[in-house]
Amino acid sequence: MDHPVSPLAKPFPAMPQIAGVVPHVVRAGYKDWGRCDLTYVTLEPGTVVAGVFTRNLCCSSEVEIGRENVKQGQARALVVNAGNSNAFTGYRGREAVEQIMAQVADYLGCPKEQVFVSSTGVIGVPLPKDKAREGVDKALTAEPCSWEDAANTIATTDTFAKGATATAMVDDTKVTISAIIKGSGMIAPDMATMLGYLFTDAAVEPAFLQECLSAANVRTFSCITVDSDTSTSDTVLAFATGKAGNVPLASFGSPGADAFAAAIHDVCRQLAHLVVRDGEGAQKFIAVTVTGAVSDESARKVGMAIANSPLVKTAIAGEDANWGRVVMAVGKAGEPADRDKLSIGFGGVWAAREGLPLADYDEAPVAAHLKGHDVTIEVDLGLGEGSATVWTCDLTHGYISINADYRS
Amino acid sequence: MDHPVSPLAKPFPAMPQIAGVVPHVVRAGYKDWGRCDLTYVTLEPGTVVAGVFTRNLCCSSEVEIGRENVKQGQARALVVNAGNSNAFTGYRGREAVEQIMAQVADYLGCPKEQVFVSSTGVIGVPLPKDKAREGVDKALTAEPCSWEDAANTIATTDTFAKGATATAMVDDTKVTISAIIKGSGMIAPDMATMLGYLFTDAAVEPAFLQECLSAANVRTFSCITVDSDTSTSDTVLAFATGKAGNVPLASFGSPGADAFAAAIHDVCRQLAHLVVRDGEGAQKFIAVTVTGAVSDESARKVGMAIANSPLVKTAIAGEDANWGRVVMAVGKAGEPADRDKLSIGFGGVWAAREGLPLADYDEAPVAAHLKGHDVTIEVDLGLGEGSATVWTCDLTHGYISINADYRS
Repeated sequence: MDHPVSPLAKPFPAMPQIAGVVPHVVRAGYKDWGRCDLTYVTLEPGTVVAGVFTRNLCCSSEVEIGRENVKQGQARALVVNAGNSNAFTGYRGREAVEQIMAQVADYLGCPKEQVFVSSTGVIGVPLPKDKAREGVDKALTAEPCSWEDAANTIATTDTFAKGATATAMVDDTKVTISAIIKGSGMIAPDMATMLGYLFTDAAVEPAFLQECLSAANVRTFSCITVDSDTSTSDTVLAFATGKAGNVPLASFGSPGADAFAAAIHDVCRQLAHLVVRDGEGAQKFIAVTVTGAVSDESARKVGMAIANSPLVKTAIAGEDANWGRVVMAVGKAGEPADRDKLSIGFGGVWAAREGLPLADYDEAPVAAHLKGHDVTIEVDLGLGEGSATVWTCDLTHGYISINADYRS
Repeated sequence: MDHPVSPLAKPFPAMPQIAGVVPHVVRAGYKDWGRCDLTYVTLEPGTVVAGVFTRNLCCSSEVEIGRENVKQGQARALVVNAGNSNAFTGYRGREAVEQIMAQVADYLGCPKEQVFVSSTGVIGVPLPKDKAREGVDKALTAEPCSWEDAANTIATTDTFAKGATATAMVDDTKVTISAIIKGSGMIAPDMATMLGYLFTDAAVEPAFLQECLSAANVRTFSCITVDSDTSTSDTVLAFATGKAGNVPLASFGSPGADAFAAAIHDVCRQLAHLVVRDGEGAQKFIAVTVTGAVSDESARKVGMAIANSPLVKTAIAGEDANWGRVVMAVGKAGEPADRDKLSIGFGGVWAAREGLPLADYDEAPVAAHLKGHDVTIEVDLGLGEGSATVWTCDLTHGYISINADYRS
């Protein structure tokens, strides 16, 4: 964590332990640094798993293997390597992942498909197998660590540790979710990655855990952007140990399923926001809410066109209520839009309504709103009932400094 | 032209007059500036017209009207307003355009559909009708001006005047094209616009002129990007007076048609490159060539994903041969790609082939190449015969300064 802490950082929360889940961290030495860089989380037998993965076609072996193995639904361990993403490394990268899976599976006496591996960091360099072997060896017998230690150890260019927690009542049983994430968008030197892990003591069928995670993903991780660049390694996994002892959740028909799904959604949204708050160079946290679209998905696409527009992001950095740039971004999204029905506001104050600048538009409250760290942009397309909110950060000199002012 | 001249600027070329075309410039005073800001080009009777326009759904009245009127194929005049884009101004903006068309048509005694109007500059402020009327009045009787004066007058935040010329032999007749353009991408304060105008003395049927312009557009203007933001006003028009006296070109079956189409393509490519060379904050002119794609269009989309990637653009700004970021951009393009067949190079030197970093990769010539103003990125997808080249510039502190470090 070489960069100054983001001005948008949040303190690490008090995170409950999850029965059946034990995190450990050790130093494998993937880079020439003094910190821990290998995270090893053990999961008691019976833990189920669900996952969502990057759609990048040039994804890493970790993603390819994880996407396949999540289908069998059971997990006994998670290993996260920091400092080397192992992406674009061909068969040698794949061998390193398979070695780690076999080493842990041998120790735990489980099928290797139940060992999940993620890697983040430099691209194009095969993960060194000797360092991985020694690191995992140490990890297998290491002392347990705190969630904050684990959150720091999965990080690369993040400027603060990121965690979130939530509880839900499932019938008469309280279940708890603790989760960690790393990422500054997809934008760090040598390409950072978003890796997120949720752990819960709830008893839940794998298919329903996947349904909850996938649904939450659509409205959280898929609604954030720092710079429109999609990592080769993005991964979010959810693990459920069942130790809370509730009647297993099998579908939305199960008692407490709605509360559990809401808690998963809540944690995913918290994690997604934390990633944006650590977007490289970010000075403003921006929520873009689009209403009046022909569908929710159309609203999301319009929101992302706004959130990805360098012109909009630099305008917010300049604290400039430049609604003309928002008009441009709506128009380029390619989704149904009618210039003469379009309304645009900042901080809850309309600047333009139904295709015309407001004659009595008072810029003073908008200017005050834009000076803060949390900025909202409202867009009403005036066409239908679809809506979505997406989140991004501004585009500043800090982004250029981090990504251009160095030689790798 | 308040900003320092781009380091990538080209001198304005010696541009031939085109028989039947007379440019004039005057000061309408759309902004509080001392320079001319209204360009008026007269076209002799019989001049035909073709055009390509922005696909932005929130386009200006100028674009809506021009797109419709280009269909009748005849043109007598062009009026370009600088300092006010007249976009997102509702019925009042439309009235201003119609006033200009009627005023010029009355004077020339032609149908108003044969008067083409473009506007560029601030958004959301209706073009003032009184200033437009007085400006056009002066323009109707103004002295002719040079191409360079016209190129300077259509400009807004451009840092240099942009023109291009080419000739072709049509059967035994030499035909000439002179063309001007303005734009620094779609990225200037308050949103700049790409406006381009080609003038030729060739005799050509409107449908074939449109065919040549549309084909050239696909491989030139549609292959450049500065920041992925699409203007509400982008317009390129081609006018042909027929004064060269060649047998009119009606199709690719006409003698000399290939030479004429090649000359149109050549001029469009020159103009497109000039816009990139004036991209805000640009220090590097970047050509991205994609080969081995399943189709030319697929190659273009992959190229644009690379050219629009902030990570790739900041890497080039940092003179960093970060091919991992190119891998990422290929993978996110959503076009057919196979990580294990992918090759990536800079300045003609492969850094990775068929999914693996080259063991004997010599970075010295690549590092030297990246220090220059003109950078090439080569990507071979290894799948098929499709290819394309797209052009962009790097992403620097200059971009942030121009777009964020001010309040409009």
